[in-house]
Amino acid sequence: MSQASVHRVVIVGGGFGGLQATQNLRRADVEITLLDRRNFHLFQPLTYQVATGALSPGEIAYPLRAIFKRDRNIRVLMAEVTDVDLDARELRLSSVAGVPAPASIPYDTLIVSGGSRYSYFGHDEWAEFAEEVKSLESALTARSRILSAFEAAEMEPDPQRRESWLTFAVVGGGPTGVEMAGQIAELARDTLSRDFRSVNPRTGRILLIEATDRVLTSFPPSLSARAERSLERLGVTALLGRTVVGVDAEGVSVDDGNGSVERIPTRTVIWAAGVTASPLAAKLAERSGAELDRAGRVTVEADLTLPGHPEVFALGDMVRVRGTDGVPRVLPGVAPAAMQQGRYAAKAVRTRLRGGEAPPFHYRDKGNLATIGRAAAVADIKGLRLSGFIAWITWLVVHLWYLVGFQNRIVVFIRWMFSFATHGRGARLITEADAKRCPEP
Amino acid sequence: MSQASVHRVVIVGGGFGGLQATQNLRRADVEITLLDRRNFHLFQPLTYQVATGALSPGEIAYPLRAIFKRDRNIRVLMAEVTDVDLDARELRLSSVAGVPAPASIPYDTLIVSGGSRYSYFGHDEWAEFAEEVKSLESALTARSRILSAFEAAEMEPDPQRRESWLTFAVVGGGPTGVEMAGQIAELARDTLSRDFRSVNPRTGRILLIEATDRVLTSFPPSLSARAERSLERLGVTALLGRTVVGVDAEGVSVDDGNGSVERIPTRTVIWAAGVTASPLAAKLAERSGAELDRAGRVTVEADLTLPGHPEVFALGDMVRVRGTDGVPRVLPGVAPAAMQQGRYAAKAVRTRLRGGEAPPFHYRDKGNLATIGRAAAVADIKGLRLSGFIAWITWLVVHLWYLVGFQNRIVVFIRWMFSFATHGRGARLITEADAKRCPEP
Repeated sequence: MSQASVHRVVIVGGGFGGLQATQNLRRADVEITLLDRRNFHLFQPLTYQVATGALSPGEIAYPLRAIFKRDRNIRVLMAEVTDVDLDARELRLSSVAGVPAPASIPYDTLIVSGGSRYSYFGHDEWAEFAEEVKSLESALTARSRILSAFEAAEMEPDPQRRESWLTFAVVGGGPTGVEMAGQIAELARDTLSRDFRSVNPRTGRILLIEATDRVLTSFPPSLSARAERSLERLGVTALLGRTVVGVDAEGVSVDDGNGSVERIPTRTVIWAAGVTASPLAAKLAERSGAELDRAGRVTVEADLTLPGHPEVFALGDMVRVRGTDGVPRVLPGVAPAAMQQGRYAAKAVRTRLRGGEAPPFHYRDKGNLATIGRAAAVADIKGLRLSGFIAWITWLVVHLWYLVGFQNRIVVFIRWMFSFATHGRGARLITEADAKRCPEP
Repeated sequence: MSQASVHRVVIVGGGFGGLQATQNLRRADVEITLLDRRNFHLFQPLTYQVATGALSPGEIAYPLRAIFKRDRNIRVLMAEVTDVDLDARELRLSSVAGVPAPASIPYDTLIVSGGSRYSYFGHDEWAEFAEEVKSLESALTARSRILSAFEAAEMEPDPQRRESWLTFAVVGGGPTGVEMAGQIAELARDTLSRDFRSVNPRTGRILLIEATDRVLTSFPPSLSARAERSLERLGVTALLGRTVVGVDAEGVSVDDGNGSVERIPTRTVIWAAGVTASPLAAKLAERSGAELDRAGRVTVEADLTLPGHPEVFALGDMVRVRGTDGVPRVLPGVAPAAMQQGRYAAKAVRTRLRGGEAPPFHYRDKGNLATIGRAAAVADIKGLRLSGFIAWITWLVVHLWYLVGFQNRIVVFIRWMFSFATHGRGARLITEADAKRCPEP
């Protein structure tokens, strides 16, 4: 490692991995620059609640500068990383939202935690019609679309078209898909049940389309079955073993695997399937010669560093980690995995600065949680399988605990208690800026 | 009035006036349609707090359908009113945010409360560079711009350009301008004071540009003087007797009235000056032959009806009201005035349905409140003049009281207590959708 006056660590990404890396280096004798395209940390496990009007953006996002305002050795920089020069040890930057950015920034140690996004199975043209809910912006767009669909149904005289406005298709039976389907069902059945005069939102169809034969494949089959029963009680129809083969403004086409393609008329499609790593993974692979898998993840060594570049760490759901047996593995794309890796990278840097050598990264599975709806969740914690109310309380406590910002925790807690008691959702706003998309230039 | 099966009342605008009219007709034997371009009621007196990151949109906006979900005789309709046919007693509609709207809607009684917006002194081209904070969307854009300016200053190596990023010009010394200037000052001095490394936000210049010789001209001069001292203590420089004669991406030009024009380099201009009525006022005037004043307000009779059209009420800050002496008067453009008029219109409709005749509208001045910043406000309540902490507590209680939604009151109260204790502002997010403007088609 270079022995400049002060060791410069550049951390890319203010998500769970980058935030933990930064927090665990704040006391070290290093100069840190934390780079993100946004000025806030997003508590991504709750974006689906913004998409369904249960929470407001400010309640699950927290300014990065505020988190590190007392740490004089940490700079936060709002910029986009476009490339990395591993030889010169520099990142190339471009500006975001009109904020000027330097053309490049040098590092002694680089920690990249760029995350992932949903992939549209190679059909990027579907993105226009099928909104995902991973970013705050997309969650707000999804919110406007879901709420507008009910408004449109209320106004639509033609029964067939009205039905397609009241049909919601969620693609992908993972935790986000299950949560979105459950929340849309609750929105239709409880929150909005009395809001309309011409239509009854309770008659809305909520479909959850999943390619495999069960939802929540990262859970044991028994919990998948319980989740499916909870979804059914909420009024969600799970279409299992169905692959989406087409999405447009008026519906989705699904293939049942036996050569028969069904057309489902719907005006609202939420996408929560497939996953593709941040383009930074490909850049790192290209520059270092590291392996890249089909989902765009770069393979890192057992100590999370790039092959041949011990000064570059990459982590989170943009990487596969090579085990001590030499086999690359995909870790679960959940917050705890990214957080453990972020903490590990920070510790590895501190160890090296003292002249030591870090042991390989070891992932500790803390368990798996998914919520379906009101008082319904599933949890698989080291073999302990919970469902129903107990799992839901566990989910609630864990999510409140990890939510950044003491004030946000209280506000979110109050919103949840109110929603639970009244079935209400305060933040169901349709704003033009979110609903509108700019025309192609 | 027509004696159709059920009397159909159409109410345009879900602001303070329209909301009160609807609420006070909910028990009457009428069929109500409430029309708004948005699906929510906005608590406009607090939009400036969204613009400065103190509150989130969902905390000051509440879905209209949720307010009236139990009233089966009330329909809420999301649409834009484009014209009115007074002879046919029909409104012409167009759709908003992709929600289909009927081409027209018939009424027996029409209540129009379309509100107003800021006018750019006939220079609409300034709007691109000077954001107002009247709508929720504009408040979010203003928020992104204000916060981005600090980010840009942090990145800017050139001292002059850095200074222009750290200069904020608020145009208009009314309550909104004073509140915005005070909040930006608190943001720079308290909230962000430790957030940056290259710049010190405390060195930011916050200018309040007002054409007359004092701020808050709707208050007695003694309270204006106190407000000016409070602003000064917060670090706001009031430029009184200055008229804005130019705004562009790099600054504003102000005329001091003695022929000398000063150029102030700034990248962030907030507009809170001038006022122009909703275009609906002009439509009503055109169709009925009623008077229209220079600010685009239509003159209504003493009972708030359009001359020659007792079935059409118009109210709020889009009208002038003819006194019993025949002279048209402009009422204060504040929430209580619109609310009183909305209640009056509802009562007048109820009286008429019983065959009675409503007495002329009488405005009761409930007093005037404006807040400057932390524990600083001025109040003029029926001659009782308050300032400082007591006025601030009064402001706080009144605003919490009138905020729609029990849950919102609690959440806002908590946010305010936290902000007061910690100088923090949780919702200071820069989102691309807000910062970005679509290119011209």
